[in-house]
Amino acid sequence: MQNINLPIIDLKQACVKAAHEVIAEKGIEHLSLRDVARKLGVSHQAPYRHYASKDHLLAAVIARCFRDFASFLDARQHFEDPEEDLAAMGGQYIAYAMQHPLEYRLMFGSTWPDTASNSELIRDAVHSFNILRNVLARMHGNSEAALINIDLDAMFIWSNMHGLVTIMQSDAMQYLDLVPHVKNNVPKHVFDMICVAMKSRLSK
Amino acid sequence: MQNINLPIIDLKQACVKAAHEVIAEKGIEHLSLRDVARKLGVSHQAPYRHYASKDHLLAAVIARCFRDFASFLDARQHFEDPEEDLAAMGGQYIAYAMQHPLEYRLMFGSTWPDTASNSELIRDAVHSFNILRNVLARMHGNSEAALINIDLDAMFIWSNMHGLVTIMQSDAMQYLDLVPHVKNNVPKHVFDMICVAMKSRLSK
Repeated sequence: MQNINLPIIDLKQACVKAAHEVIAEKGIEHLSLRDVARKLGVSHQAPYRHYASKDHLLAAVIARCFRDFASFLDARQHFEDPEEDLAAMGGQYIAYAMQHPLEYRLMFGSTWPDTASNSELIRDAVHSFNILRNVLARMHGNSEAALINIDLDAMFIWSNMHGLVTIMQSDAMQYLDLVPHVKNNVPKHVFDMICVAMKSRLSK
Repeated sequence: MQNINLPIIDLKQACVKAAHEVIAEKGIEHLSLRDVARKLGVSHQAPYRHYASKDHLLAAVIARCFRDFASFLDARQHFEDPEEDLAAMGGQYIAYAMQHPLEYRLMFGSTWPDTASNSELIRDAVHSFNILRNVLARMHGNSEAALINIDLDAMFIWSNMHGLVTIMQSDAMQYLDLVPHVKNNVPKHVFDMICVAMKSRLSK
């Protein structure tokens, strides 16, 4: 992807895309602004017009992953019934993680750069979390107590989803002596158990 | 740790310990038998008496982590009531992960070496999983159907625990705008929800 006459207006986005490619090819620890510049066919100094350091660029890459992830969650089939909607979102969460293991790992399995605290990354990450909060708000309402319960349940559900996909992607599960029926039904069982726990909680 | 006259009988264990230290100091990707030999003050060839390759040694390091982890789970306070016992084990699981992040990552967050399929590693990993299965067997019994349910529930509980500790160790949670009450009560809430789901399931 050589483009020496890249307009300045596009360079910022092009850097993010090129950095993403460098990470995919060489691993996150080998990202450098020099490689990004080389990939874009621009001077070594050019990326610095938009990113003060490699870490600023890395934060932008992870932020873009969060925006894609949020769009993917939003593209689920939507349901009137919040429980069905929650299940649809869970299915979409797993599909994203399995289809985009690198991006998933960048968001949830790697150390964010120190520059993250002042970046769009936080905003985009919170936006993804808010998609889950919004579905739970349809169950809990919007009182002050409800806001606490929404966040506790969001953390419970997120723990389940994150644990499930990282275990499914790991070697540990592969080597366990589970019968095929169990292996194939783990996601469904996890959804069922979340649903049971939520129903019991909401009926109180 | 220099010991030129290390008896052969101890070299095998010493290699595992030294490899663990090299990983802690330099990272898993920089483990080499050469560094292990240097650390032990033995010839470069000496570790090969016990480990055919770096990967064989790495599998032995991870296996040792699983044995320590299993001992830690077994050292929990034991209860007659299986639900209380399950909660005690969950607390112990979290404590281990938070106190031993490197070892936790080696077991559950890294790619196992290809040699794993023929090693003690699988046996030790399954042994850890069996600790959870054994508590669940006290709830479900030992019928054929029960064995399926034990494994489905074990995967549900493990997903929760693994998701919880990796999220707590990640940057993503740190940057979420959660109020302190929520942050402090996430583990308790996750335990409560597991307990509710299990109770409902067992009462059917």
